[in-house]
Amino acid sequence: MLVEKLVGNMLIAQGGGPTVVINQSLVGAVLEAKKHKEMKKIFGSLHGIKGILEENLCDLGKETKANLELVAGTPSSALGSVRKKPTPEDCAKVFQVLKKYNIRYFFYIGGNDSAETTHIINEAAQQAGYQMKCFHICKTIDNDLRENDHTPGFGSAAKFVAQAFMGDNLDNRSLPGVKINVIMGRHAGFLTAAAALARQFHDDGPHLIYLPERPFSMDKFVVDVKAVYAKYKRCVVAVSEGISDEAGIAIAAKFTKEVDSHGNVQLSGSGALGDVLAKEIKEKAEISRVRADTFGYLQRSFVGVVSAADAKEARLAGASAVKFATGGQFDNGSTAIKRKPGKKYAVTIERTELKNVAKETRHMPDEFINKSGNDVTSAFIAYAKPIVGDLPKIGRLKVIKIAKA
Amino acid sequence: MLVEKLVGNMLIAQGGGPTVVINQSLVGAVLEAKKHKEMKKIFGSLHGIKGILEENLCDLGKETKANLELVAGTPSSALGSVRKKPTPEDCAKVFQVLKKYNIRYFFYIGGNDSAETTHIINEAAQQAGYQMKCFHICKTIDNDLRENDHTPGFGSAAKFVAQAFMGDNLDNRSLPGVKINVIMGRHAGFLTAAAALARQFHDDGPHLIYLPERPFSMDKFVVDVKAVYAKYKRCVVAVSEGISDEAGIAIAAKFTKEVDSHGNVQLSGSGALGDVLAKEIKEKAEISRVRADTFGYLQRSFVGVVSAADAKEARLAGASAVKFATGGQFDNGSTAIKRKPGKKYAVTIERTELKNVAKETRHMPDEFINKSGNDVTSAFIAYAKPIVGDLPKIGRLKVIKIAKA
Repeated sequence: MLVEKLVGNMLIAQGGGPTVVINQSLVGAVLEAKKHKEMKKIFGSLHGIKGILEENLCDLGKETKANLELVAGTPSSALGSVRKKPTPEDCAKVFQVLKKYNIRYFFYIGGNDSAETTHIINEAAQQAGYQMKCFHICKTIDNDLRENDHTPGFGSAAKFVAQAFMGDNLDNRSLPGVKINVIMGRHAGFLTAAAALARQFHDDGPHLIYLPERPFSMDKFVVDVKAVYAKYKRCVVAVSEGISDEAGIAIAAKFTKEVDSHGNVQLSGSGALGDVLAKEIKEKAEISRVRADTFGYLQRSFVGVVSAADAKEARLAGASAVKFATGGQFDNGSTAIKRKPGKKYAVTIERTELKNVAKETRHMPDEFINKSGNDVTSAFIAYAKPIVGDLPKIGRLKVIKIAKA
Repeated sequence: MLVEKLVGNMLIAQGGGPTVVINQSLVGAVLEAKKHKEMKKIFGSLHGIKGILEENLCDLGKETKANLELVAGTPSSALGSVRKKPTPEDCAKVFQVLKKYNIRYFFYIGGNDSAETTHIINEAAQQAGYQMKCFHICKTIDNDLRENDHTPGFGSAAKFVAQAFMGDNLDNRSLPGVKINVIMGRHAGFLTAAAALARQFHDDGPHLIYLPERPFSMDKFVVDVKAVYAKYKRCVVAVSEGISDEAGIAIAAKFTKEVDSHGNVQLSGSGALGDVLAKEIKEKAEISRVRADTFGYLQRSFVGVVSAADAKEARLAGASAVKFATGGQFDNGSTAIKRKPGKKYAVTIERTELKNVAKETRHMPDEFINKSGNDVTSAFIAYAKPIVGDLPKIGRLKVIKIAKA
């Protein structure tokens, strides 16, 4: 049912894990909404769907532009987030609230779980004959949304991971040993793969990269590490928190039991996986200096490491969703980042069906993973580099050796 | 024995844990040495004392200025580091090498362990009647060197910790729960305390800070977290890896057994402490969403987060050591950063006795710790702020609440 110039209030919310640029999308949407007279009040819901259910709303139309710009540059969901998946009863309640506040434009910034929530709300609205435009605005550091070349939040998280590995590789060169770093990414290895961007010299780490897209074998892991160690006398490893065995069971899930309301096992916020892998290398590879770090939440919320392209695209995604909603062409949808063909990096934001983004996640394509399943390819580097942008310059001594006297 | 215009070669090495600005000190020393004709060759030892023992030396005098400047801005010991403490046999061997290469100026960049090594080498040189100037150049992210107002490396690590907590506090506001972050610092809590610089609004985390300077009680920890959680419905905690019980036994040491050659228990490179603390809160405080991150090696080697004051002072410390060695006034010593009195932040580098810096570490003074032993004071903030420098600006929505319809 296409309705032009649907007049009413707008409500926007943020769901799922925060990112460094998620407020760019929020502010992009709010500033664009201010241009459209048919959008009356601009409401924000605090903590996603939960805020709607509890009628915990705020007036974003009254925020100053200066403050909105400051918020846009601030990491982590300014409206608060939630990991709640609405039940059918929740949906009934959601409509009572949306009707009561005359919400005719609903925007939900989030990942595939949030897209699913938007989809459920949209379907319920249609069944109830309630005219409302429902749009999902793409976001996730995991970069695992279908239809998207990449997602807002990924570029900045990838930049953090790359800079962390640049430093950690230097640390490991200085005090050699085996260093294992566990990176976020439940089902998709993009963020872990971004560690490869840290490489500048031929022997730079990460020397091994393990992704959830390939079955993880503890035996092969030990063999791989021993081979790198034999060659370089050190080894830096990037491991996805989501690595799973042949049966598809996450290695980390063997050490934790906590699940969220979407049924996702908690993989982050614990150092268990890294410690287990380090123990294995100490025992099986007989290497004494083995350390593990789990980058954890720093990856998605660190202040001060932002990809310029990521910030720009996140802003654009927010504004585009409002344009799609007010354009008269679509009642619902999700924003999708598409890369333009050609040598110079450029993107457009297109509208895609909510169901295309909901539930299912995207994985690293085969051409991004090497044959041995322990590294990325140059195709991945070419893909990721412009999304992340320039990295700090680092140097090495020439090390002009002195002949022994 | 004061010797003016001692003619011979110079050797410089780096020891202990790397920092983001340790190469500023290296380059500061090398560029200053180039100005002194009595210093003939400028050698670097690879991996500290180990490189001397193995005669694994390089010619730093042949490095270009442009490359040295690039290296100066690169984190982690460019010459490689070592955690080896020389035995009496090692010292005998060290002199054979130093004599063979006509080393008359020896510089060791490091913490208190490296100062001790420099002290041992200096004493052995004096006993052997070998004329050599021995200087230690201060460095440590732990900020625990005596005689120093603060140490090169601390400012940048503290900036990383502050920016990490700024982001993590925002993350925790967005998805509330208890978040525990474990920070480096074996015996001194300065780096953990730097988390407090992240606070901007009255309810910002870290809400609790636990330092090695105060005995850690698991029971009090649970009570503290419950109190903060009751007030804010969330809680961000900064915990030093070095927290110890009443008997002085490190809590983390109960979960690891690895020690280095200085007898230090391995506290970093494992997520065990954070996981134990998180488990305690889950069980005893009955709070379901509890997460722990261990910042690990990122704190000392992350590329791209540098305190400008720290970089400048590290460079100055390196140059000053060479000036002290060539000035004719001292045969040995360590560089110490002193803060000038007055409102405007400024420092000088002074020469202090090696034995004043060796072995013993400095701790957080009482006036920097609150009475309850779970936070820092405003005196600490005033102390640390200029060392760390400006932090990125962040914002919050005003959140103008909508009255329920």
